[in-house]
Amino acid sequence: MIPRDPRFAERTRALFDATPFLRHLGAELLRCEPGRCEARLRVAPWQLQQDGFIHAGVQATLADHTAGAAAGTLLAADEVVLTVELKINLLRPALGEELRCAAVVLRPGARITVAEAEVFARRGAEEKLTAKAMITLTSAPSR
Amino acid sequence: MIPRDPRFAERTRALFDATPFLRHLGAELLRCEPGRCEARLRVAPWQLQQDGFIHAGVQATLADHTAGAAAGTLLAADEVVLTVELKINLLRPALGEELRCAAVVLRPGARITVAEAEVFARRGAEEKLTAKAMITLTSAPSR
Amino acid sequence: MIPRDPRFAERTRALFDATPFLRHLGAELLRCEPGRCEARLRVAPWQLQQDGFIHAGVQATLADHTAGAAAGTLLAADEVVLTVELKINLLRPALGEELRCAAVVLRPGARITVAEAEVFARRGAEEKLTAKAMITLTSAPSR
Amino acid sequence: MIPRDPRFAERTRALFDATPFLRHLGAELLRCEPGRCEARLRVAPWQLQQDGFIHAGVQATLADHTAGAAAGTLLAADEVVLTVELKINLLRPALGEELRCAAVVLRPGARITVAEAEVFARRGAEEKLTAKAMITLTSAPSR
Repeated sequence: MIPRDPRFAERTRALFDATPFLRHLGAELLRCEPGRCEARLRVAPWQLQQDGFIHAGVQATLADHTAGAAAGTLLAADEVVLTVELKINLLRPALGEELRCAAVVLRPGARITVAEAEVFARRGAEEKLTAKAMITLTSAPSR
Repeated sequence: MIPRDPRFAERTRALFDATPFLRHLGAELLRCEPGRCEARLRVAPWQLQQDGFIHAGVQATLADHTAGAAAGTLLAADEVVLTVELKINLLRPALGEELRCAAVVLRPGARITVAEAEVFARRGAEEKLTAKAMITLTSAPSR
Repeated sequence: MIPRDPRFAERTRALFDATPFLRHLGAELLRCEPGRCEARLRVAPWQLQQDGFIHAGVQATLADHTAGAAAGTLLAADEVVLTVELKINLLRPALGEELRCAAVVLRPGARITVAEAEVFARRGAEEKLTAKAMITLTSAPSR
Repeated sequence: MIPRDPRFAERTRALFDATPFLRHLGAELLRCEPGRCEARLRVAPWQLQQDGFIHAGVQATLADHTAGAAAGTLLAADEVVLTVELKINLLRPALGEELRCAAVVLRPGARITVAEAEVFARRGAEEKLTAKAMITLTSAPSR
């Protein structure tokens, strides 16, 4: 996939870092290529649900935002990405000190972009796939 | 729908309040009937995305957890609810100082419960539907 | 919701009737208002799955197409509707001689329209909700 | 993934061939390994929608059933698989004389199995990915 904006990586990174909710969660963008991004989040105790697992909402947020970053790499410089819908399957209880998410664009488009994202929880040296998401996105002129 | 646990309301409320991520987000359960719950969240500036809208992940979290509470009202006292998958459509940009979510069980089951949840953003006196979710849940023995 | 094309009903009905797969399945449009359509399908034995229930794919097809018709009522005369994605929950095994589907637009839009559809199976005098779907659609200029 | 039933392949194939709706559509199972199946469908003119593309419902049916077959390979001999929900993204208009679907189990489980399925349309020598689906399934004792 060929980016329309040669400065896609700086732009994507700057947007990721400028997002209050992701900063608050402690997420950071690890890698950023055309149509493909990877992010990480250090799990804090307040991110758990009542049984001690990482909350589905934390995983959904990381999946959504990493997919948005992956879709954003393919946009023109004056466009922003918006999530149309997200579907996430929680595959097993998520335990551990870190979440990692890898998102890839399945189908880029002028109006509609479809991406998928895998979320892994790392506990010590072991990493497990805990969720998989499909995300539909659209673009809009930035303000 | 008839609850199997006569103390379903206290149990559901206690679980909601014992969930670190929901407490941190400032969510509270407003109402709780068999198969039906309503919750609210006061929006903090760190819950926004880069354009000033309430982050999709905050809305997904509230939808997931309120649907889980609605499904939980129908469980036996020694069971807990787990999200299998969540699908959420973001219908319009969410602006405002409060989110409200109303969740209802479409189909209760011994293994599989399906619920839907509507999320509204309130700005001053005006409330708008900003997202709608379908959530599939299962139950497990509590530990 | 206000239709842009005053002849929306004839146009929607003509498109529904011109769709080979829906004709083959024996589906017919019952009602058609702005943002809202209802359709019916007489179940043939070849529409079942291996246990004698109406196949999930038949229900998904009817949900998709009725939602598309509902979205189409709001389009301009020179636009056609395309499904972006469909998500359907099968709520109980579908038994009976007729399927009925009611679809309603949740959120119309220039680019993205979101609809939901309920599918009911009728057996004798009894009708049961067997599936619920959310559908995201877009529009394109007709050829 | 290790099948519990050593005769999983014959059982899966027999069930696929015994499904009236899939037979009617002209679908056939090509390959069947533990947790992984591939199927094909020769497209008939009555399987199109109004613009000449292969109907989304045909693609959803093939994705659903191939995913069900993949999940079924991991079941015990006296269990059957049921679709809980299906979500499918239509990635591009589907044109051609054949659909092929490859489905793989992402996460097998005693109660809940999650699979994904890719649908390709072949036109002459060229095959394109036209849809991707995630499917949640459960099992029940066979009758």
